[in-house]
Formats: sequence, C-alpha cells, structure tokens
Amino acid sequence: MRFLDLIVKKREALSHTAEEIRFIARSAADGTAPDYQLASWLMAVALNGMDTAETVAMTREMAASGSRLRLKGLRSPKIDKHSTGGVGDGVSIALAPLAAAAGLVVPMMSGRGLGHTGGTLDKLEAIPGFKVGLPERRIKRQLEAIGVCMFAATKDLAPADRKLYRLRDATGTVESLPLIVSSILSKKLAEDLDALVLDVKTGSGAFFTEYARAEVGAQALVATARGLGLKAAAIITSMDQPLGRFVGNALEVRQAVEVLQGETTAPDYLECLLVLGGWMLKLGGAVRTADEGRERCEGLIRSGAAFRRFKEMVRFQGGDPKVADDFGTLPKASSSLPVRAPRSGFVRGLSARTVGHAALLLGAGRARMEDDLDYGAGIRMEKKTGDRVRKGDVVATLYGSSASGLREAAKKYLEALELGARPAKVQTVVRKILCPAA
Amino acid sequence: MRFLDLIVKKREALSHTAEEIRFIARSAADGTAPDYQLASWLMAVALNGMDTAETVAMTREMAASGSRLRLKGLRSPKIDKHSTGGVGDGVSIALAPLAAAAGLVVPMMSGRGLGHTGGTLDKLEAIPGFKVGLPERRIKRQLEAIGVCMFAATKDLAPADRKLYRLRDATGTVESLPLIVSSILSKKLAEDLDALVLDVKTGSGAFFTEYARAEVGAQALVATARGLGLKAAAIITSMDQPLGRFVGNALEVRQAVEVLQGETTAPDYLECLLVLGGWMLKLGGAVRTADEGRERCEGLIRSGAAFRRFKEMVRFQGGDPKVADDFGTLPKASSSLPVRAPRSGFVRGLSARTVGHAALLLGAGRARMEDDLDYGAGIRMEKKTGDRVRKGDVVATLYGSSASGLREAAKKYLEALELGARPAKVQTVVRKILCPAA
Repeated sequence: MRFLDLIVKKREALSHTAEEIRFIARSAADGTAPDYQLASWLMAVALNGMDTAETVAMTREMAASGSRLRLKGLRSPKIDKHSTGGVGDGVSIALAPLAAAAGLVVPMMSGRGLGHTGGTLDKLEAIPGFKVGLPERRIKRQLEAIGVCMFAATKDLAPADRKLYRLRDATGTVESLPLIVSSILSKKLAEDLDALVLDVKTGSGAFFTEYARAEVGAQALVATARGLGLKAAAIITSMDQPLGRFVGNALEVRQAVEVLQGETTAPDYLECLLVLGGWMLKLGGAVRTADEGRERCEGLIRSGAAFRRFKEMVRFQGGDPKVADDFGTLPKASSSLPVRAPRSGFVRGLSARTVGHAALLLGAGRARMEDDLDYGAGIRMEKKTGDRVRKGDVVATLYGSSASGLREAAKKYLEALELGARPAKVQTVVRKILCPAA
Repeated sequence: MRFLDLIVKKREALSHTAEEIRFIARSAADGTAPDYQLASWLMAVALNGMDTAETVAMTREMAASGSRLRLKGLRSPKIDKHSTGGVGDGVSIALAPLAAAAGLVVPMMSGRGLGHTGGTLDKLEAIPGFKVGLPERRIKRQLEAIGVCMFAATKDLAPADRKLYRLRDATGTVESLPLIVSSILSKKLAEDLDALVLDVKTGSGAFFTEYARAEVGAQALVATARGLGLKAAAIITSMDQPLGRFVGNALEVRQAVEVLQGETTAPDYLECLLVLGGWMLKLGGAVRTADEGRERCEGLIRSGAAFRRFKEMVRFQGGDPKVADDFGTLPKASSSLPVRAPRSGFVRGLSARTVGHAALLLGAGRARMEDDLDYGAGIRMEKKTGDRVRKGDVVATLYGSSASGLREAAKKYLEALELGARPAKVQTVVRKILCPAA
C-alpha cells in the first residue's frame, strides 16, 4: 500500500477500507508517512469527509496505535463523560465523584485548557498537592477503592491521534468533523469504557458556535461510539454565556464544591450536572431512566455522599481535602476589581467567548500551550442573562495579579455584556438529548 | 500574514488576493512555510480551485521567485512553444529551427522525460556532444546569431515552482489545473517571451486523457497567458496513438531530420509541425494568418532553410552536425526485434500510453528520475491506425540492448495494437485551435 494512492483516493472523495485506515493510522504513529503527505490527506478529509464506517475504523486504529489503560478485572460498568469545552465548564469536577457515589466506576481522563476555554486538569491542579499524572497501577487501585479517578492521558495513549492532532492544528484541518470525532473517541476507547456521556456545547464560547453544527457533531459522535460498541448519549448544552457563577481554575473548584454542598446559586451549572449525571447512571445501568438517574443524583448531593466522595478523591490524589471546607486554602489572586453596570436595564447576553478572553487577560488561561497559569485568577459573575441591573451595580468581580491585566479584562468584560431595556428570553441550558439506543 | 490563515481561506473556497499569493510563493521559495502547510494548501487548491486572477498572480509570483532569463536587447518577437507531453512527440526539435528560419527568435526551454512520455532535452542529448545546460550569456549569443537555442531551465529559475512541483508529486495534487497552468507558464514567463504556442495533447498517451479536460486545460492556459500579457494560442492535438513513425531519443532526432529534409512518411507529425509553426509565425507577427504561416513553413522546408538552421543549432550547441546527414553517427541499440501481426485486418488503434510503456521497457525512458537512458533504444512503427495488415507483417521494429527487454516490449506492443475486420475512422491530429485574441 502506498500513502500517495490513499491521498488520491480521498481527493477523489472515495471511501477508505478498514485496511487503508489501519495503514494511515500506523504510518502516522510510527512516522513512516512524512508530514506533508499526512497534511495533504488531512485536507482531503477536511473537504471530502469520511463516512461512519471510516470514522469508526479510524478511531479504533488510533486507539490501537498505542497502549490502552488496562482496567480489566475492575468491576463494571466503567463510564466517562467528555465535554467539547466551554467557559466556566468545570462540571466534571463535581460529576465524576457524584457518579462514583452512585456506584459507577468513573475513570475520567481529562485535558488542559487552551485559548478561551479552560481544562479540567488545570482546574484540579489549582488544589494544592493534587496530582493528575498518575501511572496506570495507581489509577486502577484508586478506581477499585473509591470508583473515581481524574487523570491526564498517559504518554503512549493513541500516539496516532497525538501526531495527527498537532498536524491538524498547523494545517487548517482542526474543524473536520470525522477527525474531531475520531480524535475524541480514540482516547476514550483506549480507556476501556462501557459507556460514555458527551456534553456537546454550542454557542459563542463553544467549538460548535452554531446549533445546527453541534447537532451534526453530536450525531456523528453517538453514531461512531455505537459503531465502536460503546453505549453513548450526547447532551447538547448551551454555551452562549459562561456556565455557572465562576470562570477560573481555583474558582471553578469552588463552584463544584459549592454545588456538591447543596448550593443552588448556579442553576445552569446544577442543571447540567444533574442531566449529565442522570444519563451516566442510566447508561451505566444503575437506574431505568435518565429522570430516575437525576433524582438519584439529587439525593446523593442532599445526603452529602457525593461531597464526601469528592474529598476522598482529593485525598487519594495527593491534594489537601481542606480546600473543600475552607476556600481560603485555594490559590488566590493578589488583586481584584469590580466591574459595574454602565447603565440600568436587563442583561440580554453575556458572550461566553468574550468572557473567556477576559479570563485569559487575567492569567486564568493560556494563549499558547507553554504559558503559565495564575490558578487564583478569574471572574465571579454577579449578573447573568435575564438578570435586572441598575447603573453602578457590580456585574462581576475580576481576580488577577496585574493592574493592567485587570483593567484590560474589565474593558473586555463590558464588551461581553449586552444590556437592554426589556428582559431577555433565557435559553435553557440543555437544548437536546441524543440517545439512539435509549 | 500567517500561512495557516491562508490555508483556512482556501479550505473555505475563498479567493486569495494578489498579496496573499505573493506571500505563498515567497514562503515556498525561501522555505519559511513548512512542507506540511504547503501540502495542506496544495490539497485545498486541488479541491477548491483557483480563479484566473489567482492563477495569473501565482504564475507571476512563481516567475518572480527566481531570476529571469535576461534577453533584453535581443530583437523581438521572442516566441516559444510548450507541449503538455506525449509519445513520439519530438516536434520541438524540428519546430524551433523552422520558426527561427522564418525570422522569429525562439528561446526554447525544454524538459526531461519521465514515465511513458519522452523529454526534448533527452532527445537532443542523443546527438553526440550536444549541450543543453547553457549559461545565460551563451543562450543570448546564440539567439543573436541564429535565432534559436534549445536549453534546460537554469537552476534559479522559478524556485517556488520547483519546490511546489516536487511537493505536488508526493501529495496527490499534480492533477490540479490552476497548479498545472501556473507551473507551465511561470517558467515560460521567466523566459521574457512575447508569445507562446501551446500544444495541448489529449488521448491515452497524454496527461489530459479526456478531450473535455484538455479543452478546459487549454482554455485555462490561454486565459492565464493573456492575463500575463503574453500572446497565446493553444492547439489541442490527438495523442491516442504515438505521433510520427518513431518513439525513442535518437530515433526521434532522426524523425525531425527526415521531416526537415522533406520526407512525408509521417503525415501526423508533419501536420502537427506545420500547424504549430503557422501559429508561431502568426503570433510572432511574421504573417497575417496561421494558414499563411503554414505555407511559409512548407516553403522553408522545401528550400532547405529550416534544415540548415537545425544543423547550425546542432553545431552551436556542441553537437556533431553530421548526424543530420548520416544517421549512422547517432547512438544505436545493440539488438532489434520485429513485431509481427498475429492476424490479418485493419489497425483500429495503437495505444500511445502502452507504446510508451513498451519504449520504457526497451530503456528509451525513465521509470524514475535517476534512471539511465539508452539513447539508441526505441520503436519504429510500420503500421498505424487505419493501415491494413496481413498476418505475419512487421508492424513495428523494436530497438534495445537486452533480449528480455525486447521480448517484454514486444508483448507490450501487441497489447497496444488493436486489430479489427473493418478499417478504423482515423482521428485528425489537430482537434481544436484556441486563440481568443486572433
């Protein structure tokens, strides 16, 4: 088989066989295909697509290109959740211990943030001492003990995906749906899961800014997961404004803790958590319906079981569980600045993307992968879409360590804030649920 | 300007500005764009195309990426001919001196053969002593003296094209029409021409196997040439069967000499020569119509002026002009093998591509660029489409230096030969002439 012939085949919009996909994934992983040939093939895929069978084969071969997590012997069902990313989306931090408290096994592999969106690993590392780079043995032992572990991808996990992902980033082919789907699912497949719940975000702060594209993406994810023998549901949720009350690493840990303690001041975050939790329990077979799963989750929060599981997880992974009872032990930025409403009215919108950029200016995120993070930096949002404000009200408090960063972020935050004379219609956070097998 | 943004723009099927095209050509020439980004852009162009304005800009920038031939001061009009390549297509060898004998200045830059098609430089080098790698000074002096010089592209001519051409070859993007057009014309533009006649071949032995694609290609070439301020005409000619009576390097030199000496045993070759010559004279302003140009060419052959000019060119370029009077001084293969008709009938077809492959097996061509050539190897075709044959007639004589090569080539040649009970309708060699300015 020659790589050049496969490029020409995809250029002609023909479908690859499973053998051809295997050859492509292996050539990417072992470096036998030069970058320029991979790049040309990636663009042909970006423009001519791949069908579900090709995407399934690609996902499988990318997972097979490295070593899987060996979780055999562990009781089932093993279930994970993946979010396509957003602003203030620290839901995983509460969701993973919550699902474990319901009896599921949750090996949750997470990523880091880049650009205006945050990453779960960065948020967890805001907890003093918390370790995310764990060897397989440690992950397995923790899952046996408490049913939940949140960790970084091991180095030799899906090397074909790592190679192609870096190239996609440099060759304008990141947006290709079958490449997105196979990239997401190859890492999940390597976790040896039984089921997966996908949170597909849509709106200004999401990868899929348009709803229609999010729905196509969700369908492709679910269809491909099923083709791989993985139970899957996709929840399409709104990312027009940031989720919850906080943006920033330590602040989003605080958000998760508050919600697990029973606080209800972030209703969109809570809704997202309960719907995702309900579906994890349903796919994991712990309940008969997602609604029943949601009620079970509410009960586990009320009883404190989910919160206790969170603290156990923190202790297991080397973190200081005191952070859960005393936010004073979390990293804090040295300064803060209130942002005040320039006039009275109703909040008609709060652009998640722009708020994400404001958080970047505060040091809460990375413009480039090598940038350092200020774990304490971030934003506490006092008013969200639908809220009434009076001129001079504090609409947000910014936390940061540089005066110029705070000033710039305040300007950016006001750009995100849309005020109007009449109340806005607030979009429900959950827009659609896709679960073809249900 | 970032290369990545230009990739995304072309992926979205948008048109590049002239500044963007300049950035792309320069980044290719100076190596600042990595191969994988160039490769991804090339595939986006292969699938989403470029319009005439983009192709004109690309051609201009690729020509500007290196040094031009400085032929200023030379009398005008300067005119060249380019063929998209075929089997037995050694017409340039006769055409260049013929057009010079009519008073035109013909700086003819030629290439080498690869695969089943031959290259003019290889054919000329079959003449003992003939030099094609000439410095600019020598080319200019020869053009001043005799009006014709046939030479290889200088090293620093259109480096952006050289870079992109090599990458296209490895990335499945050779077939892209705007890339083909800009590659051909950038080298011609760097010759500082006034006019250009294009021989666009179509049929089994041609790059454009289908007539419709050849016509689209011819239109794009002429439109782009006009956009560059170059007078141009395209002659679409048939390459279903090989042109003339010979395939092979020394043998095609012999073909050119025979035709210049007034032989008429290769009517398709002669027709091609006279039509192309007529249009060169017309575009060069030596005559009012192409028909008048054709008659002038016939006169220059009859009078021996074209033949004398050929011999002068051979002497000027270090070759032995005796080859023109004594074919015995041309390289010869050590063995020959007649191919006989397996049954009686009419030749209904003689696949140019398959005959080209037979010539490759004899050593007359290169399968890879680093292969050596056997200048004496090749094929003399005794019967062509439309001819009647009897069983046992010699339909071709093969020349080569290895017995196994001769045997394999004979088998291949019989594959090329289609015999039938009824005479075939013979396609005229000239299929269409495109000259929007005429």
